[in-house]
Order: sequence, then C-alpha cells, then structure tokens
Amino acid sequence: MDMATVNALPYEDFVNLLGNVVEKCPIITAAVWSGRPFLNFAALEAAISEFIDALPESGKEGVLRCHPDLAGRDLRGGTLTRESREEQTGAGMDALTSAEASRVTRLNEEYKERFGFPFIICARLSDKATVLRQLSERRRNERAVERARAVEEPGAQNYSLGRLVRCGPQERPPKCGLYRERQSVKSVFPSLNRSLHS
Amino acid sequence: MDMATVNALPYEDFVNLLGNVVEKCPIITAAVWSGRPFLNFAALEAAISEFIDALPESGKEGVLRCHPDLAGRDLRGGTLTRESREEQTGAGMDALTSAEASRVTRLNEEYKERFGFPFIICARLSDKATVLRQLSERRRNERAVERARAVEEPGAQNYSLGRLVRCGPQERPPKCGLYRERQSVKSVFPSLNRSLHS
Repeated sequence: MDMATVNALPYEDFVNLLGNVVEKCPIITAAVWSGRPFLNFAALEAAISEFIDALPESGKEGVLRCHPDLAGRDLRGGTLTRESREEQTGAGMDALTSAEASRVTRLNEEYKERFGFPFIICARLSDKATVLRQLSERRRNERAVERARAVEEPGAQNYSLGRLVRCGPQERPPKCGLYRERQSVKSVFPSLNRSLHS
Repeated sequence: MDMATVNALPYEDFVNLLGNVVEKCPIITAAVWSGRPFLNFAALEAAISEFIDALPESGKEGVLRCHPDLAGRDLRGGTLTRESREEQTGAGMDALTSAEASRVTRLNEEYKERFGFPFIICARLSDKATVLRQLSERRRNERAVERARAVEEPGAQNYSLGRLVRCGPQERPPKCGLYRERQSVKSVFPSLNRSLHS
C-alpha cells in the first residue's frame, strides 16, 4: 500500500489502519484525515505531530494519560492494545521477576501520584534494566522537567516520540535516546509496515 | 458518588468512569482531569464542551469521525460501545426491516461520501421513523449547513449534543431537537447515573 492508496482511503478505513498511532487517540488520526492528500509518510507524521503540538497543555497531558502503565494492569490483564503489547513485551516487561514486578508497580504509582501522568519511555528501544533504572531516577525529577521530557519537545516532527508515536527497531537511530526519537509513521507498527509495503 | 468523590479520583479511574462521554475520545476526559476540582457536574460538562470548542476544525471533525454509523456495521457486528448500543437500540436501530436496513446503509454511505463524517443525530431522543426521515433529508444539505449542525453550535454548554455528549431521556427538554441539546454529564449514561447517585 503506497501513500496514494492511503490518501484515497475513506476516513473509516484510514482510522482503522492508523487510529492507534497515538495510543487510544483515534480522534487525532481522524482529524488529520482532513488534511489529505499527504505527499508522503513524513508529511502525515508531521500533521499528527502538529495536531498534538497545537493542543492546549491539558490536551497534551490527556494524550499522555491515555497511555498504559509499563508492566501495569493492562499488560497483566491482557487488555493492552496490540501495539503496546508488542512494545512492552519487546522490552521484557512481561518477563519481570516477582520482585521486579512489585517494584515497578510501586514506582509507577509514585510517578503517577507525583506527576499526574504515567511514566513515558520508548520501551521498544530499551531493555528491562534501562526501563527500571529510568523509572527509578526520573520519578525524582521536578514536574516541569519530567513533563517537558514527555510532551514539550519543540520540533513538530520530533514531538511524537516514545510511546506517542512508537519507535520501530528497524529505524533505530544511531544515538537512540530513551524518549522522543524522530520516528516515521511507517515505522510505527511492524504490522502496518508489512501492510503498507506489501 | 458525589462530585467531591469524582474530583478525588486518580486520572485512571476518572477516565475509566467518564472516558466515553465523547465517543472513543478518552483524551478529552483525560485532558479535563487537569481542571479539577469541578464545582459540580455542569462545570465538568462545561470543561468538556470548552475543550471541544477549542479544537481546530479538523479536530471537531475528528470527534465526529469517531462516531459509529447509525445501524451500521458496529451495531450489526456487536462492536458498538455500550453507550452507543444503548442509544441505537433505544431508537429501534436494531429492529430495522431488511429493506430499512439496506436503505440506511445506502443513505449512510451517501452521507459520509458527501460530508466526510457520519450522520449525527441524537438517537436516544428519536424514533426509527424520525431518524430515517432526517437521514434522507439532511444528506441533501450543503456541507457547511450540515457541518454546522454537527459541530459548530456557539454556546459551549450547548455544543455537546447528540451523539457527542449523549442525551438522557430523563432530562428530555420540552422542545427537543434532533441534535445538540443541552445535556449534563450526569445524564450521559444511565449506568453512570446509577453509579454517581448510588
């Protein structure tokens, strides 16, 4: 499926295909459909990022609050979206020891209590040890600092990182940070990649 | 559950309770959580309406595009949200004759093709005959007219009508239109009513 085909999709098919690019926020995909035709996937990605950038601060925090906890109840209960499940299991979040799981639960709760949004990290580009260390360290940050890491990246195309627009291992940048990598829409879902390029 | 209790909810519980006030747009509920404490349900409703009002035009259309078709594939396939199912079955959308169902499908497709968003009507306040007549008539409107009916109500508290913030029969206004009634959050879901007032 190429960009011309994506541009020609009725909104329902467009949202079915791309509605979870931003976790549990199909409104964003449904909104940018208004901006068709897109020249390429980078232009579509830019439209998504620009929409998020234009949201009020509460809306950006709303985007974050639609994300599940890492190794949280959705993973344990099997209610994660496919995309989050792939991301979290890729980082070993489904293979925590009992002690690790208890620690993650406690740290997640502390983090959310302090900041009012969940810990956001690009699990796909991390491993278990890194995720646990970052969670432990970052929960001590000032709210403004942590919030900026989560939502206030200035460049529109760079905004979307992490669990907002997920990272595809096939496009892992040379100097991969833990959050907010420039990612292209076509790298968001491995399965989407397959369908778009088949 | 009273407003003080709702105000004290962590964001996850708040979104679990109210995340579908605007169909498939939990980001909106998650965003307005930032504005706690709310004085009462009207203030919470106003915050939701103000958030939608402040969206760019594409975002308002995105909200509309997250709504299922009336008597569409989600109803037939059993994949409607509970709230939409209650609304649609209340208007008899699950009891169409074969001929009616075919006609609704055709008219829905015509409507979406013409306007780029689904036909929005407050099914809870309508009956089958009214819904079918309105669908047939409104698909001939100019796009600007129809879009205004769907999203451009000026008053913030009046914005939310119809299938955006659903109508509760217990608060049916004396001059009930087919769309965009002033509705309170506490009337959105009968089941929410029960939980809030138990």
